Order: sequence, then C-alpha cells, then structure tokens
Amino acid sequence: MKKKKLIREIGEFGLIERIKKQLAKGYKLPKSYRSIVVGIGDDAAVVETEPDKLLVATTDILIEDIHFDLKTSPPYDLGWKLMAVNLSDIAAMGAVPRYGLIVLGLPVDTPVETVDKLIQGALDLAKKFKVFLIGGDTVTSPDKLVVNLVVWGVVPKERVLKRSGARVGDKIMVTGTLGDSAAGLEILQSAGRLTKTDWAKELIKRHLRPYPRLKEAQLLGSRRLVHGLIDCSDGLALSLKFIGQGSKVGAKIWADKIPVSGALKRYSAISRKAACSYALYGGEDYELIFTVPRDKEKETIKSIKKISGTEVTSIGEIVPLKSGFTLVDDKGKVNKLKAGGYEHFSVSPKNKR
Amino acid sequence: MKKKKLIREIGEFGLIERIKKQLAKGYKLPKSYRSIVVGIGDDAAVVETEPDKLLVATTDILIEDIHFDLKTSPPYDLGWKLMAVNLSDIAAMGAVPRYGLIVLGLPVDTPVETVDKLIQGALDLAKKFKVFLIGGDTVTSPDKLVVNLVVWGVVPKERVLKRSGARVGDKIMVTGTLGDSAAGLEILQSAGRLTKTDWAKELIKRHLRPYPRLKEAQLLGSRRLVHGLIDCSDGLALSLKFIGQGSKVGAKIWADKIPVSGALKRYSAISRKAACSYALYGGEDYELIFTVPRDKEKETIKSIKKISGTEVTSIGEIVPLKSGFTLVDDKGKVNKLKAGGYEHFSVSPKNKR
Repeated sequence: MKKKKLIREIGEFGLIERIKKQLAKGYKLPKSYRSIVVGIGDDAAVVETEPDKLLVATTDILIEDIHFDLKTSPPYDLGWKLMAVNLSDIAAMGAVPRYGLIVLGLPVDTPVETVDKLIQGALDLAKKFKVFLIGGDTVTSPDKLVVNLVVWGVVPKERVLKRSGARVGDKIMVTGTLGDSAAGLEILQSAGRLTKTDWAKELIKRHLRPYPRLKEAQLLGSRRLVHGLIDCSDGLALSLKFIGQGSKVGAKIWADKIPVSGALKRYSAISRKAACSYALYGGEDYELIFTVPRDKEKETIKSIKKISGTEVTSIGEIVPLKSGFTLVDDKGKVNKLKAGGYEHFSVSPKNKR
Repeated sequence: MKKKKLIREIGEFGLIERIKKQLAKGYKLPKSYRSIVVGIGDDAAVVETEPDKLLVATTDILIEDIHFDLKTSPPYDLGWKLMAVNLSDIAAMGAVPRYGLIVLGLPVDTPVETVDKLIQGALDLAKKFKVFLIGGDTVTSPDKLVVNLVVWGVVPKERVLKRSGARVGDKIMVTGTLGDSAAGLEILQSAGRLTKTDWAKELIKRHLRPYPRLKEAQLLGSRRLVHGLIDCSDGLALSLKFIGQGSKVGAKIWADKIPVSGALKRYSAISRKAACSYALYGGEDYELIFTVPRDKEKETIKSIKKISGTEVTSIGEIVPLKSGFTLVDDKGKVNKLKAGGYEHFSVSPKNKR
C-alpha cells in the first residue's frame, strides 16, 4: 500500500497552493458579487461590495503550545496579540478595521479570570483603533486553549495596498526596528535573570504586545506612495520573498541598513548571534515592509515621521526577478539571501514557538 | 487563598453574558459605522454598511474529540458540516451568504488526503449556495484537528430575521423533521449492525451532512411572514427558550405535533426513548424554528412547500412570558418544558459529542 503523504511533507505554503487550486476549480463569480480583489495568498481577503468600496477580511488563530505558552504569555498579552496580528493584516491592505468576531475554545477547567483578562487585552487594543467585537463562538476544547479572531474593515479601492505592486528600481523600506520580537521570545524561553534588565523588558514587550502599524499603512495608502507592501510577521527574508513572488521581482538589501534597536544590539552581544539575523529570520515584528518609487523615498520618510512619529528606513532596492534575492554584508560582499523564517508544519525546532 | 472560578462553573451562557458586559463598557459607535443591528447573542452578527444594506457575519469552530470524532465522521462530511453550520447561521438571519474564510489547525502528521477531502466537502456545499472561500489561516495544532469557518453575507434591512420578534398569539412552526441528527449520532457511537439498515443510514446522513435551510429562510424574509426565527442547532427546547428570551415571551407546544421522521420512529422503538425527546433535547438538526402571526399560518405552509418543496409544521403558540414554557403531552396534560439541549462547558456526558 502506498504511504499517505503527510502535511509536514508539503509544508504550509505547499498546502496553501493545493487549497488554492482546489478552490479555483469550476467556480464562476456571479455578477452581483462585483469582484474578488484579493483572494487566497495575501495578508487578508478583499472584495468589492459597492462600486470602488472594498471590504477587507482577515482571520488568525493562536493555539496553545504552538503559538504561545501560558507560562510565558499572560492571558492579557495573549488577547492583545491576537488582536494585534489581525489588525496588522488589515494594516497590510491599507484598510481601516471596523468589526471583529472572537472564537474561544476553552478547556472546561480554564479559570474565568483567564478569559476575562484575554478579552480585556483584545478589547484594550481594539478600542485604540475603534474596532468593535460583535460576535463569535465559544466552545469546549479538550486540552489546549484555542483563540481565533476575525476582523474586517473597509478601504476605498484606490487606496488598497497589496504585495504585488513592487517594481524594479523601487526603494525597499521598513517602519520601526526589526528582530526585537524574536529576541524577546528567546529571553522568555531562557527564563534567566536577563528578564530583569530594562532592555530585556523592552524586547519581551515587543514580543508580547506588538503594535499594529495601522496609522502608517493608512497614510501610505492615502498618499499613494506605495507600490508593494506586507506586514512583517514571518521575518524580513520571507517577507521580501512574498513581495517578490507577488510582484515577480527580486530584492537586494544591505545588512547594515536593517534598523535594529539598541536593546537588540545589547542582547545580540550576549547571545552571540548577529542582530540582523533576528531581523531576517525571526518574525512577529509586525512592522511594515514596502516599496516606493525611488523619487518618493525622502517624502515617504518625512511624511510618516511627521504624522505618526514612526521612523522609516530604506534598506535596499527591488531588482529584476532573475537577479534573485541578495544580502550585501558589512564588507560589501553580495551573498544570496537564504530562505528562512517562520513556516507552519515545518518539523524544525523553530516550529515550536 | 480563594479558589478561582472555572469556566465549567459558569457554563457557555454565563460566559457569553460575561463577555457581553465586558465588551459593552465604554464603547461608543462612531457615526461613520452606521449601526450594529445585531450584536453578541444571536446566530450571527449584523451591521449596517450602506443605508438599508446589512452585512451578516458568523463563525463556528469544530474541534476534534469535542464536536467530531474522525472515527465516525469522514473528513469530507466534516468539511460539509463545517460549511452547513455556518450557512445555517446565515439562514437564521434571512441573509444570502457570499464569502468565507477557512482556518485549519492541523497536527503535522495529518494526511494531505484528509485536508483535500475536508476542503472538498466544504466546497461542494459552498458551491450549491454560491459561497466563495477567499482566504483564511493554516497553522500547526499540537494534537487535535481544529477547523474554523467564517461566512458573511448580505440582506436588505427590511428582510432581516431575528430571534427577538415573536409576539403573543403567534404560531410556532418548524421546517422538516427534528431529532434525526441526535439519533444518527447515537447509532454512529454504538457502532452496531444497525448502521446497515436504510433508516439508520438516513439518520446518520442527517447527522453527518446537515443541509442549511437558506432558501426557506430567504423566502420567509422576503415575504415578511416571520416575527421571530432561529436555526435549531441546540435542540427544540433550548431553541424555544432562545426565542422566548429574545422576545420576552413564553411558548406552549404539543408533543404529538412535533414533526419526526419515519426513520426516527423506527429507531426510537429500538432505543426505547420517545422520538420527541430526540427532537426536544438532541440538537444539530439545523431546521428553522420560527413564529408567524396566526392569520399567516396557512399561507406560510403553502408558499414554503410550493417554492422549496419543504414541509412546514405548526407545533404550538407563543404565550405571555409569565405563562412560561410548556409541553402538552399526548394525553393532553400540560407539563413544564424541561430546560436542556446542548450547552458547551457543561460537565455532563452530553458534552462529548
């Protein structure tokens, strides 16, 4: 008998491709639906509801012992993060979030207090962006805590941001700093005395309470500055590949231009891993990675800074597809940019986080 | 130290009330949002997006060993059911479903074939109602299969159906037959030779492949025949209580009027439980339970039958709140209608299904 192929053998992206093909078969959109602007494979799904008005919807699930460990993630932070990762996907489309549905799968011996705090964490972040939780589902889970959130929002058609618009010659830019979240997770998992220093607390906070770049993304959309954009949930390397795949281009970046925080530099000296490797392969930073035409570089940096206070850094440029993905190291040597970053169903130890 | 209160002690409905109160605190809807027509506590959430145009959204999660057992639920049927329960919630609002997002939490050793079949089951039912799956999330799950679906649709404001419109004197009506699904589950769980008879197969099919009453609900909405409506996912007794709570009324029903199938009657003779007890306390039938003004009873039965072929049966009437919920038995004796039906986080053996 032929051995059955397992999910771990095809990986997350293999699975998504497979589902995409299966769903595409024999499906024809009725006229009354107008159009699906963005289907499976971007940060969120986008459909046209009225002429030039788009509905953006996204969902993200967090499962205990895969995405979080209640020993290191307090329930309040877990709720916050659940909201943050969904809002970051809404940001990645340039949209304004409106409503959410929350799904709780709870072991029966979960303390009520845990749920109270989880909801409060999600709610406190939701309030900052006027997102209303208006429904969901509550069920028993056999042993692990499962939380899923759905968020939808709106965006005028001409302001929607996608992964797929990057053009050769574009500047590649990022908001804030990268790599802090992965370093914060390492510190939490080591459970050592490091957690008491201010810089370690800063890194841990970046891991537990990411802040979605909604304001910045909406601004980029309204000014029409951006060609291609993604939120950095799986590390810089993989995010660049996603933009590259979506836009059929390559990318060249400079290691010493990648913005890293002072806190990460301090931790990096202790962990003896390059700060930029946390940025490239860590993930969960939820910063924006985007491309702008070369002549809009300065304007972009200035206007984002002025309106939101957020630093934007130029780290490289979009190159033709055949040039691939490269990283220029601090000695000026051009290396192939290794693939990597977070992928579900992979069997490496990284899977557990 | 005070012992922490656990979820099992407050139950599903206690939890929902708690979350509702927590979310309500200090939240004011911006004018640009128009209005939340139906928030937490109905079958689906409803918001106004354009003047008189409503967006209806619902989500339902199924977790292995709580909602299904892969030994008795083939993956195709599981996918079908996931779609069916969500579409039934859309039906309960009188809406037309449009799009869906699917979330898969998969143990890494899940066969790819299992996922293919699951998606195919969901897709085949989706196609019947022109529902498009356009996104979602795929993640690793430590040990149990977790599937979550979000579906949204649209309904003109004047056609929306709610639990809350029932009035004293209304007739209580149901589509199809009740109790089959619970009997089908019992047969599956007993795993005996019964499964080979035609009537047993019929009951099992009702459990594994429920069919959402979208056409019937949309018709009821468009003809404005209905006062209060719910889809019967938790058994007739609990469904009536939900309508009662939502509308601040009571209900009186006749046991011998509850429509039960020939298959259920045969099984009931073997299981030695009254057929109507499966209808009252079984759940997962996904039929519509609704109330219409007394003078619309005949028109309702006739028009639903004519257009969809579905039988509608009158089983009782709406009474004042103070009269409570009563069941008239086949000897004409009026009994208090026992509470019961499916509630999550309860610790009875019924929890496991």
